[in-house]
Amino acid sequence: MINPVFEIVGLSAAFLTTSAFIPQVYKIYKEKNADGISLTMYIILFTGVILWFIYGILIGSLSIIIANGVTALLQLSIIIFKLKN
Amino acid sequence: MINPVFEIVGLSAAFLTTSAFIPQVYKIYKEKNADGISLTMYIILFTGVILWFIYGILIGSLSIIIANGVTALLQLSIIIFKLKN
Repeated sequence: MINPVFEIVGLSAAFLTTSAFIPQVYKIYKEKNADGISLTMYIILFTGVILWFIYGILIGSLSIIIANGVTALLQLSIIIFKLKN
Repeated sequence: MINPVFEIVGLSAAFLTTSAFIPQVYKIYKEKNADGISLTMYIILFTGVILWFIYGILIGSLSIIIANGVTALLQLSIIIFKLKN
């Protein structure tokens, strides 16, 4: 278990880096267009984020689990959209 | 100190999520154009990455320190390019 004070720093970091990603998801769904998105790049990123998620579980870091869990879902929604269109 | 086996998972994650970011930096420098980049978004992301870096030091995670140290430098180079142009 990580010091709760440290988790405040981690959760603040998670909030900033994850929320910066939301406008792109919104833009894709609003414009129903993901042509500007590289599927290969998203699959590499998604694999990396899943590994971060596993790492978070291994070291017991709530911040890493939450940040990468949410990011993985956002990225998965973009990958599914890209594959269907 | 985190279990070295766990760090292999973390460093693999770091390699994937950080290297996915390199083509964008390359594209900006090659085209000498960062018009498609939102400065506000990059400043928010940069702040988040610095907080992750601090979090990595606090919990003693080499993977988080390396991943976010490298990402911070890449983002800073984009922010400086954007401010100068």
